[in-house]
Amino acid sequence: MTRTNPLRDPKDRRLPRIAGPSALVIFGVTGDLSRRKLMPAVYDLANRGLLPPGFSLVGFGRRPWSDEDFAATFRKAAKKHSRTEFRDEVWDRLAEGIRFVQGEFDDDDAFDRLSQTLVSLDETRGTGGNTAFYLSVPPDAFPTVCEQLKRSGLADQRDGWRRVVIEKPFGHDLESAKKLNAVVNDVFPEQSVFRIDHYLGKETVQNILALRFANQLFEPTWNSHYVDSVQITMAEDIGLGGRAGYYDGIGAARDVIQNHLLQLMALIAMEEPTSFHPAELQAEKIKVLSAASPVEPLDETSARGQYGPGWQGSEKVVGLLQEEGFSHTSTTETYAAITVEIASRRWAGVPFYLRTGKRLGRRVTEIALMFKRAPHLPFDDTMTEELGQNALVIRVQPDEGVTLRFGSKVPGSSMEVRDVNMDFSYGEAFTVSSPEAYERLILDVLLGEPSLFPVNAEVELSWKILDPVLEMWAAGGKPEEYESGTWGPDSADAVLARTGRTWRRP
Amino acid sequence: MTRTNPLRDPKDRRLPRIAGPSALVIFGVTGDLSRRKLMPAVYDLANRGLLPPGFSLVGFGRRPWSDEDFAATFRKAAKKHSRTEFRDEVWDRLAEGIRFVQGEFDDDDAFDRLSQTLVSLDETRGTGGNTAFYLSVPPDAFPTVCEQLKRSGLADQRDGWRRVVIEKPFGHDLESAKKLNAVVNDVFPEQSVFRIDHYLGKETVQNILALRFANQLFEPTWNSHYVDSVQITMAEDIGLGGRAGYYDGIGAARDVIQNHLLQLMALIAMEEPTSFHPAELQAEKIKVLSAASPVEPLDETSARGQYGPGWQGSEKVVGLLQEEGFSHTSTTETYAAITVEIASRRWAGVPFYLRTGKRLGRRVTEIALMFKRAPHLPFDDTMTEELGQNALVIRVQPDEGVTLRFGSKVPGSSMEVRDVNMDFSYGEAFTVSSPEAYERLILDVLLGEPSLFPVNAEVELSWKILDPVLEMWAAGGKPEEYESGTWGPDSADAVLARTGRTWRRP
Repeated sequence: MTRTNPLRDPKDRRLPRIAGPSALVIFGVTGDLSRRKLMPAVYDLANRGLLPPGFSLVGFGRRPWSDEDFAATFRKAAKKHSRTEFRDEVWDRLAEGIRFVQGEFDDDDAFDRLSQTLVSLDETRGTGGNTAFYLSVPPDAFPTVCEQLKRSGLADQRDGWRRVVIEKPFGHDLESAKKLNAVVNDVFPEQSVFRIDHYLGKETVQNILALRFANQLFEPTWNSHYVDSVQITMAEDIGLGGRAGYYDGIGAARDVIQNHLLQLMALIAMEEPTSFHPAELQAEKIKVLSAASPVEPLDETSARGQYGPGWQGSEKVVGLLQEEGFSHTSTTETYAAITVEIASRRWAGVPFYLRTGKRLGRRVTEIALMFKRAPHLPFDDTMTEELGQNALVIRVQPDEGVTLRFGSKVPGSSMEVRDVNMDFSYGEAFTVSSPEAYERLILDVLLGEPSLFPVNAEVELSWKILDPVLEMWAAGGKPEEYESGTWGPDSADAVLARTGRTWRRP
Repeated sequence: MTRTNPLRDPKDRRLPRIAGPSALVIFGVTGDLSRRKLMPAVYDLANRGLLPPGFSLVGFGRRPWSDEDFAATFRKAAKKHSRTEFRDEVWDRLAEGIRFVQGEFDDDDAFDRLSQTLVSLDETRGTGGNTAFYLSVPPDAFPTVCEQLKRSGLADQRDGWRRVVIEKPFGHDLESAKKLNAVVNDVFPEQSVFRIDHYLGKETVQNILALRFANQLFEPTWNSHYVDSVQITMAEDIGLGGRAGYYDGIGAARDVIQNHLLQLMALIAMEEPTSFHPAELQAEKIKVLSAASPVEPLDETSARGQYGPGWQGSEKVVGLLQEEGFSHTSTTETYAAITVEIASRRWAGVPFYLRTGKRLGRRVTEIALMFKRAPHLPFDDTMTEELGQNALVIRVQPDEGVTLRFGSKVPGSSMEVRDVNMDFSYGEAFTVSSPEAYERLILDVLLGEPSLFPVNAEVELSWKILDPVLEMWAAGGKPEEYESGTWGPDSADAVLARTGRTWRRP
């Protein structure tokens, strides 16, 4: 079947890595993430021929669904959200392995039924007992589910492998993260824990490694001799309507900087690993995070904001305090910026600016290496007035690719130099569409390939970097209001202005 | 007038450099170059407001033309070939200063009439006696014209400046170049001699200086630590029909490598000048050319070819020996490739490959810096199979711009890396269209700005580099035939293959 799969690029001579016999259990299967991301990703993997023949998917939830009800929901989700074409023959084969177990997380019987279901699936479909448990549930449910998996023997690795997949937030500070990790590791050994940071599943993020280490051109200037600063931006244009339950009290720094942005920073800043073996890759990321700390004085090198009313394109939008579900006195930040320094020979003196926010000018995630100006310019002053810093920009989303900003001569008789862009677009270069991050990550869980999942140590080190800033914010004051549709609060500009820098307008 | 010139980009805040009072005399005004390049360039300069109000243009030629006949020819040429829009009011003003002097080069009276014409133009139009003499004539006419200019007092610098403009070929080897320079310098001091190499007037060629010295990004890798080799290519798809008179006995190496390609090499290889003052720029180019020599053994590091019959696109074309005017036993090469080494700390060990040819695959001029592969690749072997060398390509023509070739991850689950391109296009980046090379160069002559004109020393050093190869070829044998529409003779591939390299397919 794999040999004739129409979705494989005929020029692609790589052997596909197909998951071995296994089952996937999703807790919280009726949730939004499950329907919009997980089910479509499973279907896409099946369609690409990357799942084993007897692959089985078990949903666990409170609703009184039959297997057929769940299958119908799955089918609808796959048809609506999957990346690849919907094909009935693929679906029919996949549907044979779909089960639903109804129950609450504290219901021992339900977990026993889940256990029986998995045993029966192994007998009828040959899953080998290999099972991944995807906890698409709020973090306060982690302890209960883990305990149940232990009690019912489902976490027992004797009959095939057992892995657990958890989604952020991994705690809300260093202390709580440690507690959470202790709970999870009490049931699953660390190498069986897969922490999803879907950013790491993105092609452009993985391309950071290719860009840096497969090329001769970039690495020689990838250090403090040539780089002036690094700006890592994740901007969203949407607001938080309907997400108060998750977001209020959490805020932008915990939601985005602690995981996505610090992980991107680690990939940009790390030394070359000897190979891409997961342990070696993680060791290099851990080295960066260990060496990183927020720059003092924290009140000048960080900023937080909360969006007020404004315009998002042509739509008039309300401020956070008017959003449904948020307290009218909420001090939750919807914008956060911090400055990180990395104590290493390569990066000493180079500030890493990390920022994220809701209701900003547009949706964009990018990493910009801002280079120093050339040490000497053999031009008249007037000829380089419009010349800025050279920049290498990794465009993570949307419009994935790489941009190089550099000075070029302006046509005409004088030697005037102005900034221009050189672009590489992922979409234009490759005809194959990129797998969705969840597709890649779920396959990696089934393959037992941990490269793209942050380990315990990374999570805790990231909290260690962020905690001082969070503590300062918790100590008093409230976020500065910024107008929706702008690029954040004035205090964020001040973070860079104190050293004569400015944020790049993405 | 300048302030309201519609051709000036309103965002362009630079003060235009306008030529001072002056006249231009063109010898060989009825020739092809004059009609297709010089007259249109003069019109474009007038249209852009860069010529002085009393600017005058005198044609000198054998035809029995009146001023009006010449003006009519000029008008037609400007309408047909000029880059900017034809405007009657610009033309009318320009036409007032157009004169024609009829005569042979050995006719003393004609030169006296030319002298009187220039005196009268100064009196009526205020040229200040400043005159540039453009010798658009075969090199064997240089001595006669120079002598006449001397005899008639026209080269005398007392009444305003007098400059002479000459076109390649500047001799056919070092010895003849020295003789030619002696003839010219006997009449005009070196700082009044402007040798046209129209390639140096091209925007993309001048952009080499901006690219290298206005940016931080490129210079750190611009040396033998990172660069494996440099390939400079000027390929043409046209043949030599109708050009036997000029080309037979000259050949590709003298016609292109001696001037254009060695000048491009000098700009790529030179050290940073303290400023772009002409003397400092020339000193750096001269340093490169002094340090350059062809790599031994010459018979293995150079190649020559002659096009045979073949296909140019869908058109069947004849070989050189069948072209009208060429001897059936001609050994003139239409393809030449040489390898140059530069004895300097920066470039030791980096071969510079220079090639040019007629009837090749397509018309393209480019400079490619081919980088070494990364010293270590932390990938599996199979993952980098389709990864070539990084390359920085300066596209001189057509489609002017810069391309960066580098490795990027192929979308999919494995870390496979393949070459992709990042492009900068001059035409897309700037709405102002680039001035034609001749526009720029004629203006520079009138301004007395010598930066873009090779001096005596450069011409002679270039011959010194090329002479050993030319002597080897002259000693015997004949060029290898290559099929029209291909990329040259097999022996050219062997030049690179001996060190495991291949020509880039532009």
